[in-house]
This record gives sequence, C-alpha cells and structure tokens, in this order.
Amino acid sequence: MSKKLHYLNVNGIAESIRYILHYGGQRFEDIRYELSEWPIKSVKDSLPYGQLPLYQEGNRTLNQSLAIARYVASQLKLLPTDPWEQAVLDAIVFNIYDFWSKIVTFIKETDTTRKEAIKREIINESVDFFFSRFEKELKANKGFFNGKLSWADFILVGIVESANLFLGTEIEKQYPTVNALVQTVRALPGVKEYLATRKPYTL
Amino acid sequence: MSKKLHYLNVNGIAESIRYILHYGGQRFEDIRYELSEWPIKSVKDSLPYGQLPLYQEGNRTLNQSLAIARYVASQLKLLPTDPWEQAVLDAIVFNIYDFWSKIVTFIKETDTTRKEAIKREIINESVDFFFSRFEKELKANKGFFNGKLSWADFILVGIVESANLFLGTEIEKQYPTVNALVQTVRALPGVKEYLATRKPYTL
Repeated sequence: MSKKLHYLNVNGIAESIRYILHYGGQRFEDIRYELSEWPIKSVKDSLPYGQLPLYQEGNRTLNQSLAIARYVASQLKLLPTDPWEQAVLDAIVFNIYDFWSKIVTFIKETDTTRKEAIKREIINESVDFFFSRFEKELKANKGFFNGKLSWADFILVGIVESANLFLGTEIEKQYPTVNALVQTVRALPGVKEYLATRKPYTL
Repeated sequence: MSKKLHYLNVNGIAESIRYILHYGGQRFEDIRYELSEWPIKSVKDSLPYGQLPLYQEGNRTLNQSLAIARYVASQLKLLPTDPWEQAVLDAIVFNIYDFWSKIVTFIKETDTTRKEAIKREIINESVDFFFSRFEKELKANKGFFNGKLSWADFILVGIVESANLFLGTEIEKQYPTVNALVQTVRALPGVKEYLATRKPYTL
C-alpha cells in the first residue's frame, strides 16, 4: 500500500514520523513544501483542518502529527501492549508537546519585543522545567521512556531538534541522558542512513 | 483498586473523563479544587508537570487529560480495536483540542482589548471552522465519530460545554448533529444520574 507523508521542508513536528518510518524500513513518499512558499493555498485548502502534516496510506488520510506518529509506531511494535504503559507514554508525548507549544508561541509572535521576551522565558525557565523532568524519567528507565525504545523517544528527539533549530540552541547538551537518547536515535539503522543524505535544515 | 481524579471544580478538560467514568459505572473519588483558590502551591508543586488533571489508580499516577481519557475509555471498550480506527479518533480529539487551545488563549489573556479581540475571532471564525468539520464527520458516521459511541464523542461534548461556559455561548445550537450528540451523551446511563446531582458550574 502506497504511503505518503506531506509536510514542510523542515524538521518541525514531522521529523519524528520520518525517523520512525525510516527506522521501520518503510518505503514512503516524503513530500515537502518549502517554508518560504507556505501556505500554498490549493494545498492548504485541501487539508482536512488546513494543517500539515498529512499522512496517506492507500486512499486513506490521517492528520495530526501525534496521531500519525502513534499509528506508524503501532505498526512497527514501538508501542507497548499494556494499556497503562501506553497511557504513560501518551502522557509523556503530551508533556513534550506542552513544551513544543511554547516554541510555537515564539514562532508565531510577530512583535519583536514580545518575541524576544518569549524566547528568554523559554531559554531561562521552560527548558529546565521540562527537560529536568524528562531527564529524570529517562534516567529512571534505562535511558528510554519505557525502559526500551518506543515512539515517545522519537517524539522527544524530533522536538529537541526542532526547538534547537528555531531557538538557535542545543538543549540536549545540559541533559546527559536526553543527549544520549538523541545520539542513540540518530544512530539507529534506517535513521542513520536517512541522516547521512538529508540536507541541513535552515529557516 | 482505588481511583481518584484530581481537577478544578469546573468542567474544563476533565469533565469528559468524569462522564466516561460515570458512564462506565466506575467508583472514583472526584477531588476538586476551587478555581478561586487555584493554584494551591503545595498541590501544584506535587503534580508531575504542575498541571491538573491528575488520575490515580492504586499507587500509580497519570497526568494529561487526553492520556487519562484514552486510558479510562480503553478499560470500558470505548476505543476501537483496529489501529487505523484508533488513529482516526486520536486525530479527531487532537483537532478538538486545537479548537480548545484557542479558548485557553482567551482564558489566559489579561489585556482586556486583546481578550475581546480573541473572543470575537473565536466566535466569528474558529467555531465555524472547526464545528462545520465536526458536524460533517458526525453526519457521515451515524452521529458518532466512529459510527458508534467512543471516547472522541465524550471529548467533544466536554469541550463544547467548557467552551460554552468560558465564552458565554451555546456553540452546539448551530450544529444539529453536534447538538444531538451532546444530548445523547448527557442522557447516557451514569452520566444522566451524575448530571442530575451536579451543581451548575460558574466562573
């Protein structure tokens, strides 16, 4: 069945999906729209809620990055089978997205003074609030959120890399267990080969 | 196993969890903090990410409203077993929460002029953008998001009622299929009895 992932030509909230698909050895069409050209009205109007990413499998379509990531992960045994363990990982990815929502506020702000203030607050407060917690959870679970590789680990790495791009920082450097996870995911079979050919992202 | 749900004394993002638990005939301690007293520092500091709701089952705890709702729904067969169908419902609840995030922006804004502008935009644009789509999806699926009652239906009703409270409106009145779903959920066994004794929410 043909698989297509539509997103911008940036890491953002789809890079973790790309990593999962490459790790799973899945063949998929990686359709990318240039940031400088987005929104392309005809494409945006065709999206169910006007937002990317969009995932297609045969003639079925799915929106929302976390719904897509969870689905492709479930196909590749990157989700635990126990409902409570699933719920714990769900909570973790939502906690990661709570951090990401602050980056989105920063990206969307057009007033220069307010934008700088948001950036300062993220760098000085939000990063440590969230990442000290992620660090602690990873440490308590052998370096992964659930004791072994799962979709939540991919989500964290994708968001770390995206936050770094938009903030011009290297969040993981202050958090050794997060940093180790980033390196582990980037060295996974499939992901490694993808990264070797992927062009660097710019804004 | 003892069950506890901690949240504010308001519908917000936990009412759908309360509805699901009552519908499932689950005994749980419904712990509520008064809005006027929140944040209570000692409670807030004890929460894993400083946020309510928090769900406890025996000595295990879970944060994030959607993780909790999905988990309790999974215990009550309110989730489909097919992974694709699950993913479609996941996307739907995230789409519903995209609408809710606009209400949160409205709630958090302290500047009166900006707050009014956000409210106008929600009432004049966001409501119809999202609810015309929800209406269409419900219509195409016999009045439920997946052709029969699921957790996504509870999430929609909870968010509709919360948005109504904060905006002082009645969103569902313009969308007959959404309105029918709200009435259906409110008349479910367990939910009906809960509503009969629940005090009206005020801000």
